[in-house]
Amino acid sequence: MSKDNKKMVDAITSMEEDFAKWYTDIVKKAELIEYTSVKGCMVIRPYGYAIWENIQRILDGMFKETGHENVCMPMFIPESLLQKEKDHVEGFAPEVAWVTYGGNEKLEDRLCVRPTSETLFCEHYANIVHSYRDLPKLYNQWVSVVRWEKTTRPFLRSREFLWQEGHTIHATAEEAVEETEKMLGIYAKFCEESLAMPVVKGRKTDSDKFAGAEATYAIEALMHDGKALQAGTSHYFGDGFAKAFDIMYTDKENKKVYPHQTSWGVTTRLIGAIIMTHGDNNGLVLPPAVAPVQAVIIPVQQFKEGVLDKARELEERLKAHGIRVKLDDSDNSPGWKFAEYEMKGVPLRIELGPKDIEQDQCVMVTRHNREKSFVSLAELEKAVDEKLKAVHDGLYRAALENREKRTYSCLTMDEITDVLEKKGDGFIKAMWCGDEACEDKVKEVTGVGSRCIPFEQEQLSDKCVCCGKPAKAMVYWGKAY
Amino acid sequence: MSKDNKKMVDAITSMEEDFAKWYTDIVKKAELIEYTSVKGCMVIRPYGYAIWENIQRILDGMFKETGHENVCMPMFIPESLLQKEKDHVEGFAPEVAWVTYGGNEKLEDRLCVRPTSETLFCEHYANIVHSYRDLPKLYNQWVSVVRWEKTTRPFLRSREFLWQEGHTIHATAEEAVEETEKMLGIYAKFCEESLAMPVVKGRKTDSDKFAGAEATYAIEALMHDGKALQAGTSHYFGDGFAKAFDIMYTDKENKKVYPHQTSWGVTTRLIGAIIMTHGDNNGLVLPPAVAPVQAVIIPVQQFKEGVLDKARELEERLKAHGIRVKLDDSDNSPGWKFAEYEMKGVPLRIELGPKDIEQDQCVMVTRHNREKSFVSLAELEKAVDEKLKAVHDGLYRAALENREKRTYSCLTMDEITDVLEKKGDGFIKAMWCGDEACEDKVKEVTGVGSRCIPFEQEQLSDKCVCCGKPAKAMVYWGKAY
Repeated sequence: MSKDNKKMVDAITSMEEDFAKWYTDIVKKAELIEYTSVKGCMVIRPYGYAIWENIQRILDGMFKETGHENVCMPMFIPESLLQKEKDHVEGFAPEVAWVTYGGNEKLEDRLCVRPTSETLFCEHYANIVHSYRDLPKLYNQWVSVVRWEKTTRPFLRSREFLWQEGHTIHATAEEAVEETEKMLGIYAKFCEESLAMPVVKGRKTDSDKFAGAEATYAIEALMHDGKALQAGTSHYFGDGFAKAFDIMYTDKENKKVYPHQTSWGVTTRLIGAIIMTHGDNNGLVLPPAVAPVQAVIIPVQQFKEGVLDKARELEERLKAHGIRVKLDDSDNSPGWKFAEYEMKGVPLRIELGPKDIEQDQCVMVTRHNREKSFVSLAELEKAVDEKLKAVHDGLYRAALENREKRTYSCLTMDEITDVLEKKGDGFIKAMWCGDEACEDKVKEVTGVGSRCIPFEQEQLSDKCVCCGKPAKAMVYWGKAY
Repeated sequence: MSKDNKKMVDAITSMEEDFAKWYTDIVKKAELIEYTSVKGCMVIRPYGYAIWENIQRILDGMFKETGHENVCMPMFIPESLLQKEKDHVEGFAPEVAWVTYGGNEKLEDRLCVRPTSETLFCEHYANIVHSYRDLPKLYNQWVSVVRWEKTTRPFLRSREFLWQEGHTIHATAEEAVEETEKMLGIYAKFCEESLAMPVVKGRKTDSDKFAGAEATYAIEALMHDGKALQAGTSHYFGDGFAKAFDIMYTDKENKKVYPHQTSWGVTTRLIGAIIMTHGDNNGLVLPPAVAPVQAVIIPVQQFKEGVLDKARELEERLKAHGIRVKLDDSDNSPGWKFAEYEMKGVPLRIELGPKDIEQDQCVMVTRHNREKSFVSLAELEKAVDEKLKAVHDGLYRAALENREKRTYSCLTMDEITDVLEKKGDGFIKAMWCGDEACEDKVKEVTGVGSRCIPFEQEQLSDKCVCCGKPAKAMVYWGKAY
């Protein structure tokens, strides 16, 4: 057994003991990432990258089905271009990486490595959008971006991260608003149907908007430890960027007018969300839709005649059935293999030994609840489909239960403090007057910030939880990653 | 018709008049790229990016079939890491972009934006390779890299470009050499079977090796204008990088030894190669395997009852058959559409008007030779398959003929000069003694450099074309992009 292999079966820190350590143990021991000598920049290893490839494949399909096209913008933004939209540059300039030399030559206009690409898309729109017939443009790109964060954590907050950024430009404000909401809906659907992760859809308060946006919408998920994680955002820009970048088009009445824009994105942070939503003290637990290996076949007494042949036959059958299956015929012990694939979160384990073969059956164990069952080999494909569906449904249900158990309605600041003290972190639902001062005060006094103003509103009371003045909306509050 | 649309049907410069202008006309008018305010950094537009996505999909499948896994390394390399392998840093340092500030903070160790990622992979190998059981690692990544070139041209030489870089590490030199050759073979197969582009496989002379490599292999293609284009490279590193980065593993005899490495890559330059191999004076001509749209349906007299319905029916049938098909039912004229999709290089045009429908047929026109035929609608799918195969075969044959016509055997320097003067640029086959001084002199006197030492050798004579001393090998010489 190699040194690398041996590490795998070492136990990880339990999440009750130290949640942060549990998390980093998993990212390392499930071989999702490895650190590099540049702080905040990580190697995404094959197993981690394969999760991202599955996320990409599914989302990219959803984007293309809704008429979006992929493009690729440069990674560099000249400082002069970044500065064109006032709020945008204020938001991003403090945290960008600056290229000042090309070879030995000092650059006149220094270049930042894109922290996000609105300015590049705007420059491009100005070149290609002239008439109402050129609209809409529904673009997306899969790239990495850089934000020079002070504190970093793998997947959750890194200096370079992978993401997709959608950028669209429309003739009317209505169309752009519709796009913003549509893409938030696609993100929510993806999280629920592919990541088995329930999310709250809502609007960010003004203090939490994207730099340069008129409105920012987000999906928020609740992690195992009761902290909130923003899993995706969608921004409506109005015509602010168009004005700053002088993008105009001739409408049907032959008048020059400003178009309206949006942008939206999700990142490799989703992998962090998967870990903290579904993982347990034996390691990662992956939702079947994005698991690099959906089912692992582990032969028992594989040296006995016929065992490996039969295992290979099952592998071929499942491959032909469209399952991402792996047969581990290495000479590690079955017990070691059980632990390894539990650590790696493979949704379904299939065991097959001489006795099983005699009875024309195999053993199936679902990762999330370790439920064991005997399955007739004639029913193999059907059983795998059912088990994978059961894993997805079980993961979703457990995540939803965790969120519901940890969501509290509070009418006063004291109630908030009390709940957090007694129950631990979670989502706090509380009314808000819409005043930024109250938002700040809630955070200062209780420690929870506004996460979003959910689309699904409830009238908990008619008073702001902070100042007691008439409430405008119910807000989800929480501590956030 | 929008301004953007109008531009489309303007004629392009003919390649006989000005080949370079013909090329840039195509990249702009076929909407492959758009320039940005950063020299050498371009926007790859949806139509151009879709070609790249097809290239990626096919190659990625070939890599995975041969056991390679995708990973993602950071984009930044600390200067201290880049400097670890002497030849490597000498080759790349003069042309890298340097990040010197993160936010407002000056970096102690400045970071270069990766020009290639050997150093990052080596740092990673040192962390994860300990035993012979950890080998081989067969990795690849799809990313962009930056090289601060002085003169730039879209796709052919840009400061940022997209590529894949394969990096592998093996227990033995033999295995690594085999990998290097295998990947060159995969590139050649891909170019021939998917890009309809014949290539010469060979080894680079020492003066043309990758910085840090023991041997560099390349595939070379000949463009319309007789210039050579290096379409892909594969490098064997021996254990040079392992020694520089202190990567060692314990072998089966429990001894600490150095592993052997390779790297190999192709870039968006392949799109430039497609243009210059197959394009004509009406625009782009795309090989069917990578064409974003393989067949375009253009209704004639589409306002007449039943025409659009029938066209949509054909579209659905071809989609179901797995063809990338587009129906253009816009209100532009058929003539305008013909010109547009010729410019965009769509391999097959299907015309359908009321008279065709009466006779239960359609018209098919193949882009590369404008051959027109009438096809019974009952035979639609079969005919499309055959036509697309005919386009591929026709393109390959024409490219091969062009290369053969423009490949000349020369025994003396005078013959080289003479051929180039009378026949124009092309591949020169000539014998070489292996001495770098002769290689330099051939270039200085005749203008052609060594392209590669082809695997398929011919004994044109036993004397070096330059010095007359005993020849070691036949070399392909040419002017290169």
